[in-house]
Amino acid sequence: MNIKRADLYRELALEAHLRQGLSAINRVICVLILLASFVAILETEPMLRALSPRLFPTLETVFVVIFIGEYLLRLYVVGEDPHYRGVRGRLRYVFSFWALVDLLAILPYFLGIMVQDNGFLLRLLRLGLMLRLTRLGRFSQAWAALTEALKSRSHELWLSVGLAMLLLLFSSFCLYLAEASDQPVAFGSVPRVLWWSVTTLTTVGYGDMVPITGLGKFFAGLTAVAGIGIIAIPTGILAAAFSDAFQKKQK
Amino acid sequence: MNIKRADLYRELALEAHLRQGLSAINRVICVLILLASFVAILETEPMLRALSPRLFPTLETVFVVIFIGEYLLRLYVVGEDPHYRGVRGRLRYVFSFWALVDLLAILPYFLGIMVQDNGFLLRLLRLGLMLRLTRLGRFSQAWAALTEALKSRSHELWLSVGLAMLLLLFSSFCLYLAEASDQPVAFGSVPRVLWWSVTTLTTVGYGDMVPITGLGKFFAGLTAVAGIGIIAIPTGILAAAFSDAFQKKQK
Amino acid sequence: MNIKRADLYRELALEAHLRQGLSAINRVICVLILLASFVAILETEPMLRALSPRLFPTLETVFVVIFIGEYLLRLYVVGEDPHYRGVRGRLRYVFSFWALVDLLAILPYFLGIMVQDNGFLLRLLRLGLMLRLTRLGRFSQAWAALTEALKSRSHELWLSVGLAMLLLLFSSFCLYLAEASDQPVAFGSVPRVLWWSVTTLTTVGYGDMVPITGLGKFFAGLTAVAGIGIIAIPTGILAAAFSDAFQKKQK
Amino acid sequence: MNIKRADLYRELALEAHLRQGLSAINRVICVLILLASFVAILETEPMLRALSPRLFPTLETVFVVIFIGEYLLRLYVVGEDPHYRGVRGRLRYVFSFWALVDLLAILPYFLGIMVQDNGFLLRLLRLGLMLRLTRLGRFSQAWAALTEALKSRSHELWLSVGLAMLLLLFSSFCLYLAEASDQPVAFGSVPRVLWWSVTTLTTVGYGDMVPITGLGKFFAGLTAVAGIGIIAIPTGILAAAFSDAFQKKQK
Repeated sequence: MNIKRADLYRELALEAHLRQGLSAINRVICVLILLASFVAILETEPMLRALSPRLFPTLETVFVVIFIGEYLLRLYVVGEDPHYRGVRGRLRYVFSFWALVDLLAILPYFLGIMVQDNGFLLRLLRLGLMLRLTRLGRFSQAWAALTEALKSRSHELWLSVGLAMLLLLFSSFCLYLAEASDQPVAFGSVPRVLWWSVTTLTTVGYGDMVPITGLGKFFAGLTAVAGIGIIAIPTGILAAAFSDAFQKKQK
Repeated sequence: MNIKRADLYRELALEAHLRQGLSAINRVICVLILLASFVAILETEPMLRALSPRLFPTLETVFVVIFIGEYLLRLYVVGEDPHYRGVRGRLRYVFSFWALVDLLAILPYFLGIMVQDNGFLLRLLRLGLMLRLTRLGRFSQAWAALTEALKSRSHELWLSVGLAMLLLLFSSFCLYLAEASDQPVAFGSVPRVLWWSVTTLTTVGYGDMVPITGLGKFFAGLTAVAGIGIIAIPTGILAAAFSDAFQKKQK
Repeated sequence: MNIKRADLYRELALEAHLRQGLSAINRVICVLILLASFVAILETEPMLRALSPRLFPTLETVFVVIFIGEYLLRLYVVGEDPHYRGVRGRLRYVFSFWALVDLLAILPYFLGIMVQDNGFLLRLLRLGLMLRLTRLGRFSQAWAALTEALKSRSHELWLSVGLAMLLLLFSSFCLYLAEASDQPVAFGSVPRVLWWSVTTLTTVGYGDMVPITGLGKFFAGLTAVAGIGIIAIPTGILAAAFSDAFQKKQK
Repeated sequence: MNIKRADLYRELALEAHLRQGLSAINRVICVLILLASFVAILETEPMLRALSPRLFPTLETVFVVIFIGEYLLRLYVVGEDPHYRGVRGRLRYVFSFWALVDLLAILPYFLGIMVQDNGFLLRLLRLGLMLRLTRLGRFSQAWAALTEALKSRSHELWLSVGLAMLLLLFSSFCLYLAEASDQPVAFGSVPRVLWWSVTTLTTVGYGDMVPITGLGKFFAGLTAVAGIGIIAIPTGILAAAFSDAFQKKQK
């Protein structure tokens, strides 16, 4: 074996890329992750599956073989790092965060082979395949900046989430109070009205549930106006957090 | 009685928690308030009530007994505070803001027993039960920071509310002008069009009322664009107020 | 006549109120304007008009008589101001901005008496009555602050309006390109698609016109995403302008 | 020929207008571009075409003749600039960015004459006519400021676009998971659900596709709330970028 483990380790390691950018091998892996995710999306469309019944399972197998190879390779070369040396070190690596994400992106394939029905379980496994995309986070400096920005304002963000929840419950109760007599099915209980409250407070407004009484419209108007405030607060917090995070990085 | 009133007072008092966090007893009360609110929400769902007709009334009774106990306990130990000592001091406490909120969270239960119909009045009482959630405000430093932030910009916020009201009336009049002939029921008077204006200015847009004439669509387009400004102004004010409030607290 | 013109002038004049607040007489006028506007709104509701056919015309007459009195009084006392002394000065006052607004708030009443039909023209005159509300602007310092803030950023605001118009036209053309074959009535020409574009770019989204082709949905998705940018730009500009304006005032 | 090329060059050149504003001839061209675009929009409306079948083709011919004249004139006078002197210089000018835009605004007319069908191809050519509007960018300093502002924050903007794409895919998968059994046509595959996700994350919310299961509504609520964050991040970035760009220009 003429390729040295140390060279491979240097190629696969990510510590250096803050200075030098991603190595060629890591770029290829990023592209493969994007491709595999794209295939996983197209695979859900029955019309495309009907066109070529063998294409998608074959592609899935190819991707999984490659990802297993990458996983084993990482497991092999990580021994270069003193922290992960030996059998106990390897086990420590297997249970590290990004290694678990790598494993979770491979496992759904094998579960998918065992599952025979075409319903909820299969769709859940396909969602598991999408976890591959989160693997990209490992390669991105921006991800670290993002999570740090969110952490630095977590207190304010939780407060605004709490306020939003309170407003959500309160407006649901008000609409239930006003509309339950006139629309007993759609507005017949607070949990049912919650769906309406979420879509109104976020100003989405599908229109599948609409108040028809005067009192209901009055409460709904107040809810919609309050929704502006509920949007304004995290908008301001997030905007300030990102502005700070990017200014720090420039310095 | 071997538990001293002073110890209990120290446990229940909130003055100290700015430094030390909530005491164990206050944490239990917070969890009970959240639980009782959750039960009050589920109770409105007829399907859940049908599953177990006795469960919700029993739970309500348990919560009310606990909250009455808490109320009486607070009334007893508050005598430790020189300001609330003696009978006149206790009366002063009963009419203090948070004590009234505590009382309002208990009363709807007893009214609910007397009410026999299953309509508007019962739903109103259930809304009263939700007032419990505002009791959480007592335990939160963030609540104080929030209300202070809003107060410091109240002048600007009232101005933007005034502007929004003016725009609301003006756009309602314009749509009434344009659409009343073609949609005499939905757009037949300014008060009826107000509902449309609120949902458009807040960019909710349910689609239950939509202009169909060219002039109406033109005015509606202007309203939607104006809505962006109406959202932008309080967003900016609130974002700045919260940013200031949290920066102050960090110092 | 024992009330001196100079005293009345001092009561009606607005120059002093920046320091001392509104005088009693000006406060009464503000309340009357709000009342008259509220009556003008309720008057449009046929159900309320049917309840009491004589009430609203009587109220309108009362308000107009009061506003004519106010107008004549202002015309009389304005002679105290050297700038508006004599007949030529009075004419100059009549054609000043706020005096014209006052006149425009009175005239629709007399036109309304002459109009006999119950359609578009009458509604247009009722809209004229709403101009009364803009008279409140005279009494508000905030109005001046607001218009100044907008003026100071007018260049940026016009640029963002220009950008929004360009995007509006471009997305209308794209949707017309994609959907005209499949929905020839709703998306049959660019002017018809403009309505869809406005409601999408402002994220109102009524749902009365929705693309059904793949290409149309792709363009519509891009339009909706672009709408976020279109909202973000004036939001930032307005928020900054108001923040500056209020900070200046505090100093 | 008594008009000198140098004078004409000075009239048509844009370098000077940063100091002196647009020359008379360039203002006329701007107005003509706006007029031609307005005509191109109205031309798509079949009702207007039916009113006067010869009007729009005639107007189009007039505009194209003028724009060809402008193009040739620019090509002639650009020789004043040493960089574009001689035949090779002229060729260099023809392939410069703005000269290509000018050409692209003329070509669709000639293609339109050759196309006989009234469908997709003709609408595509009409969209080409709209490219004229982008020619206005040449005359605007603001355009340069805008593109520079966007470039200075391109890293942050791409990051937020990437995040939005990830969220889009993830929420599409979740809704597909929850709703595919109950609404097999509308939510039958991830690509179909993408349309729903875009309209929800941007808070447009048409209401043509709405989740009906409890799990679907739960995921949809989370998507709508996440949409607020997705809007907040570019809003903050764009607002800061524009604020910086305009402050720089003022200095």
